Amino acid sequence: MSQPINRQWRLKNRPVGMIDENDFSWHEEAVRQPEKDEVLVRSVYLSLDPTNRIWITDMPQYMEPVQVGDVMRGIAIGVVETSEHANFAPGDIVSGMWGWQEYATLPAQQLTKIPSDLPVPLDAWTSVLGPTGMTAYFGLLDIGQPKQGETVIVSAAAGAVGSLVGQIAKIKGCRAVGLAGTDEKCNWLTNDLGFDAAVNYKTTELDKAIAEACPDGIDINFENVGGKILDTILTQINMRARIVLCGLIANYNSDEPVPGPYHFAQILMQRARLEGFIILDYIPQFPHAIAEMATWLAEGKLKYKVDVVKGLKEAPTAVNYLFTGRNIGKLVVQVSDLPK
Amino acid sequence: MSQPINRQWRLKNRPVGMIDENDFSWHEEAVRQPEKDEVLVRSVYLSLDPTNRIWITDMPQYMEPVQVGDVMRGIAIGVVETSEHANFAPGDIVSGMWGWQEYATLPAQQLTKIPSDLPVPLDAWTSVLGPTGMTAYFGLLDIGQPKQGETVIVSAAAGAVGSLVGQIAKIKGCRAVGLAGTDEKCNWLTNDLGFDAAVNYKTTELDKAIAEACPDGIDINFENVGGKILDTILTQINMRARIVLCGLIANYNSDEPVPGPYHFAQILMQRARLEGFIILDYIPQFPHAIAEMATWLAEGKLKYKVDVVKGLKEAPTAVNYLFTGRNIGKLVVQVSDLPK
Repeated sequence: MSQPINRQWRLKNRPVGMIDENDFSWHEEAVRQPEKDEVLVRSVYLSLDPTNRIWITDMPQYMEPVQVGDVMRGIAIGVVETSEHANFAPGDIVSGMWGWQEYATLPAQQLTKIPSDLPVPLDAWTSVLGPTGMTAYFGLLDIGQPKQGETVIVSAAAGAVGSLVGQIAKIKGCRAVGLAGTDEKCNWLTNDLGFDAAVNYKTTELDKAIAEACPDGIDINFENVGGKILDTILTQINMRARIVLCGLIANYNSDEPVPGPYHFAQILMQRARLEGFIILDYIPQFPHAIAEMATWLAEGKLKYKVDVVKGLKEAPTAVNYLFTGRNIGKLVVQVSDLPK
Repeated sequence: MSQPINRQWRLKNRPVGMIDENDFSWHEEAVRQPEKDEVLVRSVYLSLDPTNRIWITDMPQYMEPVQVGDVMRGIAIGVVETSEHANFAPGDIVSGMWGWQEYATLPAQQLTKIPSDLPVPLDAWTSVLGPTGMTAYFGLLDIGQPKQGETVIVSAAAGAVGSLVGQIAKIKGCRAVGLAGTDEKCNWLTNDLGFDAAVNYKTTELDKAIAEACPDGIDINFENVGGKILDTILTQINMRARIVLCGLIANYNSDEPVPGPYHFAQILMQRARLEGFIILDYIPQFPHAIAEMATWLAEGKLKYKVDVVKGLKEAPTAVNYLFTGRNIGKLVVQVSDLPK
């Protein structure tokens, strides 16, 4: 058997504004066979996430930024092809952060085995049972601390995280309100996912639309966007509101300093709590959360949608969909065929 | 005996920018004798606090703003002159929110008796044992949750609250760093109050000066100011930092919308918690805190300074000292003679 070729996207230069395909360079090189304690993995799904844009910006952040010349970082799911570690065998399904490439040869300790005993399709592990689902779960439950009857508003609600946040809010007895940028997305939220209300932030007078959707005010804001959306929400928070700061995608493509919300003082006036979190900190608690999310999934209380783009070549183009609002649900690149 | 005259400052119009004496009008009227369940009080100390500026602004806030024509709201300490309620007797020392006037006739339930069994001067109740001291105590301990060895930085550190925050931080085994606007204030913090370091934010390169004063980064920021100071601090917070949002005096005199901090995203990157609080919410817990603060005071672990301006007439001028940086410690107006 001839040595397969590994194709990769490497960071060529730091993007200015939106990502351009020319910010990455396409490399082809022979796959390296694993040495002791290493595993060779074939990528199946590559997760595209808003945080990818942070990773390639030279700014203070929660991990080292990706260096120019390195393979682009990304969360992936794949199949073990060859293993030199006792815990992994060919055919095992694994996840890791081996990035934007078709194959990866890496230490076994950098891989997590995907449980094979749950009756869910593989794409569930890119979404509801993966880091995305964990972000919704821990962000809302651990940081947001929802109580029955409270109103939860989530921005980028038709996105991978937001669509799950609203559904978990419903499971916890809250009123779930989503903000999204098209009527199609809003309809999906209310008709398919059970949100109580959805607001098209592009076509409505935002403050009035939010006030109508949240007649009792806002107790929890799960914030993925920032900018004008957060600013408007701050004017309608209740006393002791919690603002779960999950993302600020309105800022990520800006090359100018972006000011914080103008209604920042509302945090003081309403004795609100605004707290940032990064899902990596919760990894030790994933198993319990996966079990609970899988139960809700099996009970039909959680639905998810995976938006699949085919071919690694598309990754630099597709990642922008997260910022232009083109995708619904979890955005992934399918890099190679699904395992049988 | 002829009826005494009550002199008052009433709000004439809402200030634009800094408070002007012409924003208030001076009234003189006969003192009203108390009816059933009412008490007549003579003001001794009137507390001037940055929040006074919020109260006369037409903006969303934690109480109803003072209405034009009303006596200006203010926390005061005084002596009972006449009482028609069994719980109060002439000579009792009481506190309440009867505002900028020499006398007040008000329901007994709006008064709190100042304990007479503690060997402290009356001015301690305007500062360390009053709402100011309670703000420092609950803000730092309940919201900030300091742990031994952590670094606490406080803005407006030579002010009434800030000067106590740093001392409580020291009691809890933290490194205490203060920001103030004159060398005299900085010297007071380090030489007299035991702060580990003080930074003159007007004469230093702020980011470098803070970095030198906080070599291990910032774990807790007790924020009284906002604006550029908060923005600079955000660039140096540690992971899981807590930002105790007590005040935003940099904003209070602005008539234009003030943006939130430009480094807002640091709250996300560092998984920080920013929480606003209003001391009124803690009133039921005051007795325990007063007891602990009084103990620290008796042990010499807490010092306080009261900056006394004489005469109610001075109140509209003196309240601006809080924003121009003229006062050190707790700013009060002495309205009448101390009780014997």
